[in-house]
This record gives sequence, structure tokens and C-alpha cells, in this order.
Amino acid sequence: MAADDCRLICDGLRQLEKDHAAGNWKIELRDEDVHTALESRLGELIGEAAGRLHLGRSRNDQVLTALRLYLRDACDQVVLHAQGLCSSLQELARRQGGVAIPGTTHMQHAMPSSVGLWSEGFHEAFADAVDGLAAAKRRINKNPLGSAAGYGTPGLDLDRELTTQKLQFAETQDPVTAVQLSRGKAESGLLFEIALLMLDLSRLASDLLLFYTQEFSYIRLADEVTTGSSIMPQKRNPDVLELVRGASATAIACLDECLILTAKLPSGYQRDLQRLKPPVFRAIDLVIESLDIMAFVIDTVKFRPENIVLDDSLNAAEEAFRLVTSEHIPFREAYRRIAKKYAK
Amino acid sequence: MAADDCRLICDGLRQLEKDHAAGNWKIELRDEDVHTALESRLGELIGEAAGRLHLGRSRNDQVLTALRLYLRDACDQVVLHAQGLCSSLQELARRQGGVAIPGTTHMQHAMPSSVGLWSEGFHEAFADAVDGLAAAKRRINKNPLGSAAGYGTPGLDLDRELTTQKLQFAETQDPVTAVQLSRGKAESGLLFEIALLMLDLSRLASDLLLFYTQEFSYIRLADEVTTGSSIMPQKRNPDVLELVRGASATAIACLDECLILTAKLPSGYQRDLQRLKPPVFRAIDLVIESLDIMAFVIDTVKFRPENIVLDDSLNAAEEAFRLVTSEHIPFREAYRRIAKKYAK
Amino acid sequence: MAADDCRLICDGLRQLEKDHAAGNWKIELRDEDVHTALESRLGELIGEAAGRLHLGRSRNDQVLTALRLYLRDACDQVVLHAQGLCSSLQELARRQGGVAIPGTTHMQHAMPSSVGLWSEGFHEAFADAVDGLAAAKRRINKNPLGSAAGYGTPGLDLDRELTTQKLQFAETQDPVTAVQLSRGKAESGLLFEIALLMLDLSRLASDLLLFYTQEFSYIRLADEVTTGSSIMPQKRNPDVLELVRGASATAIACLDECLILTAKLPSGYQRDLQRLKPPVFRAIDLVIESLDIMAFVIDTVKFRPENIVLDDSLNAAEEAFRLVTSEHIPFREAYRRIAKKYAK
Amino acid sequence: MAADDCRLICDGLRQLEKDHAAGNWKIELRDEDVHTALESRLGELIGEAAGRLHLGRSRNDQVLTALRLYLRDACDQVVLHAQGLCSSLQELARRQGGVAIPGTTHMQHAMPSSVGLWSEGFHEAFADAVDGLAAAKRRINKNPLGSAAGYGTPGLDLDRELTTQKLQFAETQDPVTAVQLSRGKAESGLLFEIALLMLDLSRLASDLLLFYTQEFSYIRLADEVTTGSSIMPQKRNPDVLELVRGASATAIACLDECLILTAKLPSGYQRDLQRLKPPVFRAIDLVIESLDIMAFVIDTVKFRPENIVLDDSLNAAEEAFRLVTSEHIPFREAYRRIAKKYAK
Repeated sequence: MAADDCRLICDGLRQLEKDHAAGNWKIELRDEDVHTALESRLGELIGEAAGRLHLGRSRNDQVLTALRLYLRDACDQVVLHAQGLCSSLQELARRQGGVAIPGTTHMQHAMPSSVGLWSEGFHEAFADAVDGLAAAKRRINKNPLGSAAGYGTPGLDLDRELTTQKLQFAETQDPVTAVQLSRGKAESGLLFEIALLMLDLSRLASDLLLFYTQEFSYIRLADEVTTGSSIMPQKRNPDVLELVRGASATAIACLDECLILTAKLPSGYQRDLQRLKPPVFRAIDLVIESLDIMAFVIDTVKFRPENIVLDDSLNAAEEAFRLVTSEHIPFREAYRRIAKKYAK
Repeated sequence: MAADDCRLICDGLRQLEKDHAAGNWKIELRDEDVHTALESRLGELIGEAAGRLHLGRSRNDQVLTALRLYLRDACDQVVLHAQGLCSSLQELARRQGGVAIPGTTHMQHAMPSSVGLWSEGFHEAFADAVDGLAAAKRRINKNPLGSAAGYGTPGLDLDRELTTQKLQFAETQDPVTAVQLSRGKAESGLLFEIALLMLDLSRLASDLLLFYTQEFSYIRLADEVTTGSSIMPQKRNPDVLELVRGASATAIACLDECLILTAKLPSGYQRDLQRLKPPVFRAIDLVIESLDIMAFVIDTVKFRPENIVLDDSLNAAEEAFRLVTSEHIPFREAYRRIAKKYAK
Repeated sequence: MAADDCRLICDGLRQLEKDHAAGNWKIELRDEDVHTALESRLGELIGEAAGRLHLGRSRNDQVLTALRLYLRDACDQVVLHAQGLCSSLQELARRQGGVAIPGTTHMQHAMPSSVGLWSEGFHEAFADAVDGLAAAKRRINKNPLGSAAGYGTPGLDLDRELTTQKLQFAETQDPVTAVQLSRGKAESGLLFEIALLMLDLSRLASDLLLFYTQEFSYIRLADEVTTGSSIMPQKRNPDVLELVRGASATAIACLDECLILTAKLPSGYQRDLQRLKPPVFRAIDLVIESLDIMAFVIDTVKFRPENIVLDDSLNAAEEAFRLVTSEHIPFREAYRRIAKKYAK
Repeated sequence: MAADDCRLICDGLRQLEKDHAAGNWKIELRDEDVHTALESRLGELIGEAAGRLHLGRSRNDQVLTALRLYLRDACDQVVLHAQGLCSSLQELARRQGGVAIPGTTHMQHAMPSSVGLWSEGFHEAFADAVDGLAAAKRRINKNPLGSAAGYGTPGLDLDRELTTQKLQFAETQDPVTAVQLSRGKAESGLLFEIALLMLDLSRLASDLLLFYTQEFSYIRLADEVTTGSSIMPQKRNPDVLELVRGASATAIACLDECLILTAKLPSGYQRDLQRLKPPVFRAIDLVIESLDIMAFVIDTVKFRPENIVLDDSLNAAEEAFRLVTSEHIPFREAYRRIAKKYAK
């Protein structure tokens, strides 16, 4: 390409960026998408040279490249918000970590636990999610540019490594036929991690909803996360936690949609794949909102030790362990003796 | 524990292992599970010292530890079978890679392609799955042992790092409350990778089923993977490929089941989590079978170049590229000229 | 309630309806929802008497009542659009029903068929969907009004049958505790029928996409439902059919979301249930659009008999049947003889 | 067919039925399926006339006919077991219906309720399921026999109405091309109803699990439905209810599997459809077991009124209603006054 045309194009694109930021133009329905919009506006700006913009490109690899750059950013965003919740959980452990609560299995009092242990358990879950999100970037970080419609650019020698470097992808996706086969997989990888995150959030919400019942009364929630009733003047409802609990269903459904969309398609690009976007955007927005609201809930929750009743029997396992150590008897024998003591 | 009892227990367990291998005993319904079965048989063998076996253990962490060891093996197995299919695809590329086929988008002839490009595209997909499976081991490779019922063993100082090393886990899962919160996640991580693998297999099957129609007649399939009809004597049906295509639905449903099972549960162990096992086992068996059968299909498929009709218009993009290079015109101008040539 | 206040309220509501239609007010975020919006605007209009509006109501039963009225309408709408597609399929059968096509099993030529048989098969599928939608109204047609927060209105004797009649519900949902337990079920019932409809549409799209490949070339599609390529000047892509095929994934995911949302919730109203609405609205819009676009595709599709090659072997089963009748031999014997004839 | 051969065949089949019941033969792998097994054993028994058995049949319509007969029975079975649970719930209402419990929304005490209202709410849910199951039979009750491979039996005039009557189907599925298009829909229809049933069971289990926590202590469960702990001698765990709660995930996944299997398939029989059977059988077994075990739980549960604390504020709505009636003030004014009284 003549250096002149190249400069025209670059200057033109910079101008369009500025104009767009200033609100002087936006993408309209007749543009089909951002790529066509840019090319046609560039044409109005610099004339015929704009026709060189699309050389060696197909909408297929342009759309996919833009999507992967977006997914990479989204991944980083979700990590940041998950880390925010991690901090809130650590802060709670610092604030009220010493408050004793029953450790439960089967929702039954089982062993001694504490707000600290409870909070740090969830902290590990969200820290694990951060690791999972980092791993999910592997599939996102493959450069599709230059695969064009999925079969490369015969007769045109593109330097694919160059765009890989410029766009900071970890590798060039190769062979070109692998690119369209990989559609839906980077998206699903991120949505899977989001689904796991939402599962943890839903379990955290379930615990808090249980703790907030009158029968438990383990916690107070901030007014900002409860609402009043239209008919029962005495009530404060933990709506926000219920919305988080329910959001796990949405996250699972978004993942499902991506997987089902991709299943059974012949290889090569199929338009079905454009339907991947709504569930991807929906899940990303949802998890970020949910993490933030849960961080606020944790920042403002107050455990009420005066209401938390711990029965002696919580220590039964510990007593059995001590019997084993002090009397050198097998655990089963110690278990039998302690069981007799606590038999109701 | 007295060194004597320790030796008794170790010898006893070795004996039970031998006897079990020899078919002299098996786990029965009244045993509840392998852990109780071992303890009670050990009791018959070595007497009271067997009562020391369960010290510092809970069925919760034993079951989970056994499951993670199993998942780790399963992961490796799936990798092996995926690599088997990779080899078959490479072999096909060597055998018939030069055969020209149309590259398609929207199931329409688009650009020139070849059996080699087609086969290598899928090869990259399954090689990517192998990388994904390796990453899925991260969540599996955390040692839950010593978390007992999920709240540790107060009064009993266990060396959790020791079992982490002996069982070759990558890390000790900590704090203890994180262990039960993590249930379902290692399983789902593996099942997600299996789902992606099955999606790729379903897309490969879809291509081959298309190629096998009379209208395409691109390929011949081995007799072993086709069946006859009970009413139409002239037919050979590609049942095996249809079963693989359909199996993607099963893999997605197995993942769904695991995710939905875990959603909304309060923290701590809940018996619901035992229901994770059937979908996990089902998905693992399914993907291994499917990979093997597909490797056989690929080993025995024969492309039939004599039936593959390539229209000149396949080269339209390439011609446009050459016009750009030879006449230094913008791509859009070249596109317009070539479009006119192929206008129907 | 004093007759005066009643008249004030009724007149006020009529006025608000008119004003709303004229665009003079709309529901704002601070209103929470339509019910609060109406009550507060009514208060501005008629003063204190507006405070009587909510008597014996809870947002819970108001929201649910409004939703069921909406679902009932939506059901009727979907029926209308499905019937539109039915007409298009019948019209196609009339137009080109006599064109011979191969009947296939396993995507292999099997028996003689025709455009008429093909089209009428799908017609029956959508007529069955219409019956299914009618049945789905059973769960929608139960009046929740008067259940208030889910426990009725102790101390206030409401005539629930009256609103059942006025709103033309088929029955009053009773006991009051059944109302909140039924949330999600009427919605899921409709979404299940929509999912089946979308499955049929996806199968119809799959057939047409197959027919539209160059190898088949059974059909021509209208220009309005195909698009051009950004890089390959010679192509026409059947995007619209691919979008319909993919939409089946969205419909299944919407149903999933509703089911997972409802699972495991304690009885009584939970805020999670508000999350049912987005998938419900999404699925309804999707199916109506998809039915309409498919009706247009069917109205404009043209089968091309000149390209449809029918092999003699299609008649093998018929020949075997005739042998049975003419020679009085068992079917298996006839099958063997015919099989020999067509052996390749 | 000669009357002689007909008699031979009928007698032979009756003989085979008797022999099978007596355990003298069973279907083996080499038989492929019951249909081939019967034909070949009949051949051994009566010779060449057995070759007439398959006339005008295809495995496709035989398998489907057998499946629909099975689904019809399964539907009736599920109804019976659901009615069993209905009886148990009514019996509980009779036994302890008068026990006061708080009616909750958002898991918060809201209004006065009772064991009777609670139990009857669930009774209505399962009675509604019975109606839903009856409606699901509509899709099952269409006779596919005579559609053969999906394109009828050209050259052979079958009386399809006769088998419709003999097998007590409600109608003959017509045209023949509709039969294979309907695969998966009757199955999914039943699985959808099972999923709703399992959702109700999971909500019932969630309530009981909440009631069984130490903090609530509303109920006692029978020893048969609780288990001990391997490490904590003092515990009784409500495993059975957790397994029922978790089973809702399995039921949703079975439905998913059926829907995803059917999506996007070209019309005509595809072997993928054989994969519908495992989720169908799994869901049916699961729901029957779950209904039975829940009936046992309800039969043996004991509410403990001495532990159920009802706050005065539960009556706030009722007090507000009474203020409205006695003082003729608007509800909002009454609401404000009562809210002030209960302000904390």
C-alpha cells in the first residue's frame, strides 16, 4: 500500500475516534456493524483510499478479534470486582472473626466454628475464582486476525504475527480453519467461571438469608439492602440477597445458551454464532453487579453473638479426640463413649 | 498411635487389597461405602486396633479425597484418548491432506480449502482441549484431607502437608471451611472441558454426516460404523456419527446437573452433593468412548475427490487480492469488479 | 368503602389511563412498579381516598395477577403467529406439493417423498404446538388475587370469586398458600411450549439450510432472507435461517433459567422469583419474531425439481412390498431378493 | 396373509411371551433389540412364516410405538405416586393442621399461618401436577404405527386406524412425516411435568430442612429418614430430604438433555434420538422414588408447637384491616398507624 494512503487512513481513523468521542457520529442500523460504519465514514473523509481498509480482512475475523479484546478486558474487570469482595470478607474476619458460630453439616450443628472461619472459607472460594478467570484467558488470548473468512487470504501474504504482537495476544491462532471452530469456546470458558462465581455468591446469600431469619437472628443487615412490605408494616425484607441467590440461575442459563448454540454446527462460520453475544454481555454485567452488591452487604453486615446459641454437644468430636490422646484408646471406642454421653 | 497398631493396620490394609483383587470380598450395600467397608473388615482381621483407622477423618473428607484422586486419573485418561484422536486427524492430513474441498461459511462454498486444512483445524481444537484439561486439574489438585467434616480436627494436631505430599496433591486446601464450599467445582471444571470436547466432536460428526449424504458424496465410511435398515434393503446408515453428534446433549446436561446441584446450597456439607457422582461418571465414560469411536472413524474414512466439485467462483477473493496487488487499486474497487464477473 | 370514595377512585383511574395513553405521565424508577405508581398518582389526583386502593392487596398478588393476564395474552399471540406459519406451509403444499423429493432417514435417501409430505409434516408439528399452547393456559388461568402476601387477608372478607369472574380466570387459586408455590410454573409451562416450537423451527431451518447448499441446490431463497459477504463477492448467505436455528438454544436457556430459579426455594414469596420475567419476555418476543420470519421464508421459498435427483433404489421397500403381495412370500424373503438387486 | 400363517404367528408370539416370563429366553446383545429378538426366535419356532412379521413395519415405528405405550404407563404410575403424596399431605393437615406457624415471605415472619394451610398449599401443587400429567398424555397418545420409516408404506395399504383402536391410542398420527418430527416432544412433555413435580418436592424439602435446624426446631423427623455421623456422635442428619432437594437438579438436566438432543436435527429419523431413552427412564424412576420417600416423610413428621414462637407483629396486617373497617379510614392511614406501633 502506498505510504500516502496509509497515512491518510491512520489520520482518518484517529479523526473518527475523536469525533465519535465528541458525539459527532454514532453507529446506525444501516451501518450493519462498527466495521462497516468505520469504512464508510472513512470513505466520506478521505475518499477512495478508504477502500484499502478491508484488504485481507473479513467481517468474521474482525468481529471475533474485537470480541476477544472485549472478553479480555471483561475478564480483568470481573477479577477486580471479585478481589473487592475478597477484601470485604477479610475485613469482616478482622472485624468480627472471633465470634463463635456453629459449624454445620446437613444444616445441623456439627463442630465449633467462627465468623472468621466462615468468612475465610468464602474468601478462598473467590480467590480460587480469580485463579480460574486467569486460566480462562488462555482461550481468549489467541489472535484470530488474518484468518479472514476462516480460510486465510490466498494470494495475499499477511504478517499475522505482527497483529498478534500489536494487539498483545499470547499466540496466533493457527491453522486458519481452527479459528471458527473455536467460536463459543472462549466465551463459554469465561461464562463457566462466571457461573462458578455466581454459585459461590448464591451459597453465600443462602447462608446470610438463613442467618437473617427470626429463628436464627445471627445478623443485622444494613437498611440499604432490605426493603419494606406493601402490606405488612412490621417487616424488613432481604431482597438484595434473594436477587443474588436467584442470579445463579441466570448465570447457568447464559452458559447453557452458549454451549447449546455451538453444538452440532458444521465447521466454518455460521450466523448462529452471533447469538453468543447477548448471554455473554448479560452474564458479565450480572456478575459484576452481584459482586459489588455482595461486597456492600459484607461490609455492612453485623453478627449478633448475643443470639448465637452453641450447645455443648458441638464439642463431641473434640472430646472424642482428647479421649484417644489421653487414654490411648482407638477412636471408635472414644466415639462410642461420647455418643452415650450425648444420647438424647 | 502405638507403632504396633500402625503396623497391624498397614499390614491389614495390604491384605485386604490383595483379597479384594483376588475377588475374596466386595463392598456390599450394608457397608454404606468403601471407607466403612474397609474399617469393618479390618476390624475382623486385626481386632480393636482397626478402631484407630478413622481418627481425624470424616467420611466427608475421605469421600472427597477419593473422588479427587479419581478425577485426576480421569483427566489424564481423557487427555490420552483426545491425543489418540489428534493422531488420527494428523494421519488423515498426511493420507489425503492434498484433496481439495470447498471451504464454507454459512454452509456455502466460500474459499478454497483442503482435507488437510479441515483436518488440522479439528486437530487444533482437540489439542486445545488437552490444554484445557490440564488447566482443569488445578481445582482437582487441592488436598481436602484433614478438613474432616469441614471444620478441621480441634484437639488433634494433624500434619495435613504430609498427606498432600504422599498423595501428590499440588496444595493443601485451606482454610478447612473452603473444602466443602469447593464441592462441585472441580467436578464441573472437568465436565465443562468434556462438554467442549463433545461440542467439537459433534461439529466433526456434523461435517462428516453432511459429507456422507448422497448429494455431497464426499466420503466413504467403513462398514463397521454404518448399519443396515430393517425395511429399506438398499441403505447404509451412519449411526455411529449420529450417536456422537447426539452425545453433545448428554455432556451439556451432565454439566448442567452438577451446576444446578450446587447452586443455592448453604455452606458446609449437604447430602445433595452426593448426587454429583452419576453425571460425573456418565460424562467421563461418554467422552472416552466418543473419542475412541471418532478416532476409528477418522482412521477409516476415505475422501472421494472424484465427487467434489469446486466452482471457479471459490477463487473470487483470491482474484480480488491479486487485482489489488497487480493494479494497486483499493480492495473495494477490486471487490466490485470481481463481483460483477461472478454475478449470476 | 363509601360509594363516594369508590366513584372517586374509579374516575381517577380512568383519568390516569387516559393521561398515560396521551403520554402525560410514565412510570419512573422511584415508583418501584406500576402498582405504587398508580396509587401515588391517584393520591395526587383525588387525595386521601387513594389510600383505600391497596386494601386487601399485596404487591405479591397484584404483580402475579398482572403477569398472568399478560401470559394469557402472550399465549394467544403465539398461537396466532404459529397459525400464520401453518398457513404458509399449507400454501407451499398447494404451490409445489407435487415436487418429488427423497424421504430420508439418517440424512440418507430412504423412500419416495414430496414437498407436500414434507410441508404437511411440519404443518402438523406447528398445529400440535397450538394445541400445546392451549393446554399451557390451564396453569395461567388461575386467579391469585386475594391471596395477598400468600396468606390471605385475615379480618377482611374478600369476594375472590368476583375478581375471578371479572378478570375471566377459569378458577380461583386456592388455598392462598398455593399461590406463591405456583410461581414459575405457569411461566415455565408457556416457555416449555415455546421451546418445543423453537425446536421445530430449528429442524425446519436445518432442512432448508441443507437444501440450500450447492450440493443439494433443492431450493432458491428470497433475496430478503439472504445477505452478501464482505470478502467473497460471489456469495449469498442464508443468515436468517441460521439465526432461527440458533434461536432454539435461547429458548431452551430461557426455560432452564425459569426452572433453576424456582428450584429449592422455601415456600412463600421469595424475591428471586422476580427474575423470572426477563427470560419470559425474551422467549415470547423471540418465538413471535421467529415464526413470522419463517412464514416469510416459506412463502418465498422455491423448490427446484430440476436439481433433485431420485435414485431408483428409493423404491426398494415398495418393490419388496409388491413382491410380498404378488408372490405371497414373507417380507424377509422379499427383502433379501431386493437387497441383492441393489447391492453395490 | 394366509390365515394359517397368521395363526402360526399369533400362537408363536404367545408361546414366546410365556417362555420369556418363565425365564427361558432373554434379549441378548446380538439381537439388537426386542423386535429383532422376537422375529428371529419366532423363526426358530415356526419357520418361514415368521418372515411375515415385519411386513409394513420399520424399527422406527415399532420402537416409537413401544416407547409411547411405555410413556403412557409411566404417566399413570407417576400420577398414582403423586396422589399418594397428596393423601399424606391431607392426612397431615388432619393430624396437626391446627398447629400455628408463621406464614413467611422472604423467609421472614409475615402473617399467621398453620400446618394445615402449609400442607394444603403443597397438596394443591401436587394435585396440579396430576392435572399436568393428564395433559402430557395428549402428545403421547398419538399412534405412530404404520408410518414405517417415516414415509408410510407405498404399495401396501395398511389400516392404521385399526392399530390405533387396538392399542387404545387417542388418534392416528398423520401425515406419516409428522411422526419422526414429533420424536422427543412426547418425552419432553412428560419430563417437563416431572421437572415441575421435582421442583415442588425440592421446595417442600427446603421447608422441612429449615424447620429441622436447631434454630427452628419446628419438627421431628422419623429415624428412618435421618442418619448418623461418622465423626460427630451427637448428630442426626436429614439426608433423605437433602437427596430429594438435590434431585430437582437431575430432573431439570434430564429435560435439558431431551430438548438439546432434538434441537437442530434435520427432519426424518436420526439415530441421535435413541439417546432420549436414558434421561427419560432416569427421570421417571427418580420422581417415583422421590414421591414415595416424601410421602413417608410427611406420614412420619411431627410438628412441635412448643418450639414455634409467634410474635404479635404477625397480626399487623390484620390489625390494619380491622382499623380500616372499624374507623372507616383508608388502608394507607391504617398502615401508617400500625407501622408506628411495631417500629423497632
